[in-house]
Amino acid sequence: MSQTAGEEQTGPSRISLKFQPSGKSVRVPGGVSVFDAALWNGVPIDSTCGGHGTCKKCKVRFVDADTPISPLDERALSAEQLADGWRLACMATATRDVEIDIPELTTRPKAATVGVGRQVILRPAVQKRFLRLEDATLSDQRTDVRRILDALDDLEVQVNPAVLRTLGVTLRAAQWEVTAVIVGTHLIGLEPGDTTSVSYGVAYDLGTTTVVATLMDLTTGAPIAVASMLNQQQPFGADVISRISSTMLDPDSLGRLSALAHATLDELTGDVCAQAGISRESVYEVALAGNATMVQLALGIDPEPLGVAPFILATASYEGLLAADLGVHIHPQAPAMVFPHLGAYVGGDIIAGILASGMDRDKRLRLFIDIGTNCEIVLGNGERLVATAAPAGPAFEAASIRCGMRAASGAIEVVAITDEGLRLQVIDDAAPVGLCGSGLVDAIAELSRVGLLDQTGRFLAQERVQELRPDLAERFVERDGERLFILATSDESGNGSDVVLSQRDVRELQFAKAAISTGWKLLLEEFGVDESEIQQVLLAGSFGTYLSATSAITIGLVPQIPALRIISAGNVAGEGAKMALLSDPERHGATALLDEIHYVELSDRTDFNDRFVDELAFP
Amino acid sequence: MSQTAGEEQTGPSRISLKFQPSGKSVRVPGGVSVFDAALWNGVPIDSTCGGHGTCKKCKVRFVDADTPISPLDERALSAEQLADGWRLACMATATRDVEIDIPELTTRPKAATVGVGRQVILRPAVQKRFLRLEDATLSDQRTDVRRILDALDDLEVQVNPAVLRTLGVTLRAAQWEVTAVIVGTHLIGLEPGDTTSVSYGVAYDLGTTTVVATLMDLTTGAPIAVASMLNQQQPFGADVISRISSTMLDPDSLGRLSALAHATLDELTGDVCAQAGISRESVYEVALAGNATMVQLALGIDPEPLGVAPFILATASYEGLLAADLGVHIHPQAPAMVFPHLGAYVGGDIIAGILASGMDRDKRLRLFIDIGTNCEIVLGNGERLVATAAPAGPAFEAASIRCGMRAASGAIEVVAITDEGLRLQVIDDAAPVGLCGSGLVDAIAELSRVGLLDQTGRFLAQERVQELRPDLAERFVERDGERLFILATSDESGNGSDVVLSQRDVRELQFAKAAISTGWKLLLEEFGVDESEIQQVLLAGSFGTYLSATSAITIGLVPQIPALRIISAGNVAGEGAKMALLSDPERHGATALLDEIHYVELSDRTDFNDRFVDELAFP
Repeated sequence: MSQTAGEEQTGPSRISLKFQPSGKSVRVPGGVSVFDAALWNGVPIDSTCGGHGTCKKCKVRFVDADTPISPLDERALSAEQLADGWRLACMATATRDVEIDIPELTTRPKAATVGVGRQVILRPAVQKRFLRLEDATLSDQRTDVRRILDALDDLEVQVNPAVLRTLGVTLRAAQWEVTAVIVGTHLIGLEPGDTTSVSYGVAYDLGTTTVVATLMDLTTGAPIAVASMLNQQQPFGADVISRISSTMLDPDSLGRLSALAHATLDELTGDVCAQAGISRESVYEVALAGNATMVQLALGIDPEPLGVAPFILATASYEGLLAADLGVHIHPQAPAMVFPHLGAYVGGDIIAGILASGMDRDKRLRLFIDIGTNCEIVLGNGERLVATAAPAGPAFEAASIRCGMRAASGAIEVVAITDEGLRLQVIDDAAPVGLCGSGLVDAIAELSRVGLLDQTGRFLAQERVQELRPDLAERFVERDGERLFILATSDESGNGSDVVLSQRDVRELQFAKAAISTGWKLLLEEFGVDESEIQQVLLAGSFGTYLSATSAITIGLVPQIPALRIISAGNVAGEGAKMALLSDPERHGATALLDEIHYVELSDRTDFNDRFVDELAFP
Repeated sequence: MSQTAGEEQTGPSRISLKFQPSGKSVRVPGGVSVFDAALWNGVPIDSTCGGHGTCKKCKVRFVDADTPISPLDERALSAEQLADGWRLACMATATRDVEIDIPELTTRPKAATVGVGRQVILRPAVQKRFLRLEDATLSDQRTDVRRILDALDDLEVQVNPAVLRTLGVTLRAAQWEVTAVIVGTHLIGLEPGDTTSVSYGVAYDLGTTTVVATLMDLTTGAPIAVASMLNQQQPFGADVISRISSTMLDPDSLGRLSALAHATLDELTGDVCAQAGISRESVYEVALAGNATMVQLALGIDPEPLGVAPFILATASYEGLLAADLGVHIHPQAPAMVFPHLGAYVGGDIIAGILASGMDRDKRLRLFIDIGTNCEIVLGNGERLVATAAPAGPAFEAASIRCGMRAASGAIEVVAITDEGLRLQVIDDAAPVGLCGSGLVDAIAELSRVGLLDQTGRFLAQERVQELRPDLAERFVERDGERLFILATSDESGNGSDVVLSQRDVRELQFAKAAISTGWKLLLEEFGVDESEIQQVLLAGSFGTYLSATSAITIGLVPQIPALRIISAGNVAGEGAKMALLSDPERHGATALLDEIHYVELSDRTDFNDRFVDELAFP
């Protein structure tokens, strides 16, 4: 891999693979299998085993390259084919730049669009196989398990002990015509008859505030029902720190928080199943993306070490979990895939978001920002990824804003100052009762843009306001020694009180903005690029969806680039979870991300405070 | 492997390994690792990882042989060492006859004697490691799991989800000085401080009639407490068929039988822990040997297919079971090793017995007979093993014998007819009330030996008795049209009734004896040897312990060989379970047995009935 002088190499190196006849060229981490590399990049290769080395169907030809021959290659291919460069894609690893011929598929694979416009080939961990088995006889006394495994000989499968209990009865009642339910390498169930058309999974975005569940039809890749609700842990505090604190103050809290997470997830699950009119037992897997605290609480893992220095995760990745461990009642043996964490403050939700946005395989230099109390920032171009977490504080959560509120009915979500005066957009077109995060950013950006807020974040003196915008002067008032800007008077508002923006509110936003922009500026330095080179900014999370790109640029929350390059990526964590359900290779890609992303710890940097102070000002 | 002409090869071939400097020569199945082969045969090799390819300590030298070099060999050994024949024993497989130098051990391994005089090197699946970990800091933010796994880097370990819940709290409360509890490849617990001296396992012999539990100290290999009781399933019938039938008649039976098995095992476990004064939580693993029906019932697996043709097992082997699946309350994450079955009627108890008696590695031609309602027979010489199951019927279980009873107080267990007359030995020296299995065999053997029973099994006519043994003539009576031999009169007996042997009792025993001897004679033919070549007969199970060798020879139950060569092997199933707890390689040996033993199905043989009729007569 060629490196720019002075560029620090982080993570494993990247390999170029060129797939023919499409001519598609991709860069992938060294050491991944050619099969996975192709699938991640939407290049389908024939396979029934999903790249596990058993079906021997993923034959590809390496052009002008001497690729090592695996023992399996020798069994699957003739000497002539081997000499001609043919290998099994699942056994060949990408170790150097190479061109590969992919034969035309015998069947067209199904694909679905998920994440940020990503096309994913359907290869769920959940597989159902209809089996017509031969009856047992005195001359064929194979055990029930052996009979089933022999019929699944292209898969590596082990039988869950719980399945043993009913296996014999099911086989005989169904007269040896059954459907095997396999998730990953586990046989989790056996159903009478042919049920291959019925296969579901649920993807969860387990947020601190909101939890979203999406029911996915794993046979088509389509989302068929969605439900969301507030995280029932809310009474224990709005943010992760207050929930962690509650477990430190009361030994019973952890159990209660865990139970509330379970109740939330299970209620949503019942809801989506009811919407779609399907049985809970036909949901065979769940995937969950959440921040480290939400995940540890849901699993009943003490979160205290996450909340106090040096901020330690119990574990980065989770193996062997069942949906039942999350309190979700679906198929009793259904596994749960939980997204791994990069660090205490760059959690599984961010890993899912990066997966969904394809940051590890897009050639463009992109900046990913998930804005919240804790703000996660990732910068990368498909060759390298760097990440950090910035403590943005509660400004965007409205808790510390004088008239702050959640993005709900009556919240001012858009603020514009034109020559005609002040213009507000209120959620549900209701009379305004408060200001949500996007409204806050808009208000400050607009006041700054028209010059009523100086670069340091101070409201102009009243006489200067009078000179500049006499039409707005009466909206500036001073109460209890603090200057306020009245967005809606008590007459206009829906609750009989003025809806205002205070000087202190501006300060709160400045702190948040400074933390975030310090974060991405340090990442740009780490990467050795200038902010003008950023080709796309992805704003993630529900807050990112509402934020005005122009306002974000105006206050310097995001780089000074054309507003069109700033896009709202939506609920990327949930998209990542959906993607994990639809594609086993994608899910392995998520685990691979942990090794690829270089994490930059801000609290370790001696220059952080200096930089932070510089960033308090507006551009 | 050289073969005698006409000898049918069954199972995988055997390889000769000669270990130096001891000069010990062993024959092992082709394809096993040299490490396992050495350990099975009591040849210790340095290792801390137990042969998992991680500690790189098991260096051995192959003499005059070009052994393939594994990638791990290249990392662990210098080019010079490789050229000189050094390899890692755990990576090298036995594929042809070879001589191997084993370096002297740096530490003397602990060993224990278990089974039929077998010396087993202590290498339990349960390992405890005391760890002094470095505190987490801002510059060392490894996750708790990573910190522990890094300290266990010679082992391949995955962390059970349940351990995650308390791991962080334990680490911090213990100030980072903890003991990791690993079973196989699973980290099942983390304990504060150094608890490496506390490590226990329980071995179960789950019999249809009697259940035995032995508490093993895994740090010394010593059994420290034993308890036994009747299987609480007794009310559902004395034998496996009646228990299977009950599940077919009543849908609730399976659940109740399963619960009774759990109650039996758990009560015994509590008993042995109490005897030894140890906590149930310090028992980290259990091993269980039982016949297929007992195991399936204990696990709640419907046994019906075992009871009706074509007699099908749900599964031969059990993976991923916990002690909790057997209803045993010990360490909540403790695994359960359950011996695999060869067939519906050659179960895990027999596999355990073969392991304990070392039949797969003893050069002598040996015959193993476990006498019971279902009688399992194995013949082998360490090169080959053949096995069968013979339906002996209930004669030995006393149910169908007129005065039959269990081997309990008041049972006649020894019968001798001397010139002085009839001599009885009664359990507990009590007044006789019945006849147990060994007494039954003795009575019939003695009557046959002195000629009062003819070769066809008929009592002599009264006038012939009068001629031959006038002293015993009055003991022969006829009641309700059937001739009886009075062993104890109502005056002598403990219950006011005569204790008798009836003509029908003799017939019952003849049927049982014929089934068994037909079984082992067919195995001898299968093997191509004569009964005189048998060097040892092992009588297994509690019945075998009491049986008189001479009587067994007299009636033809066992081959006509010197009585000293017939030995009671005792509770070999329980010994096998103990061995599995003490040695991970031995346990893998048990699984390997499934592939090595050739099973001969008697009900398939067209000549079985003819042979059976021939065998009804006494020799």
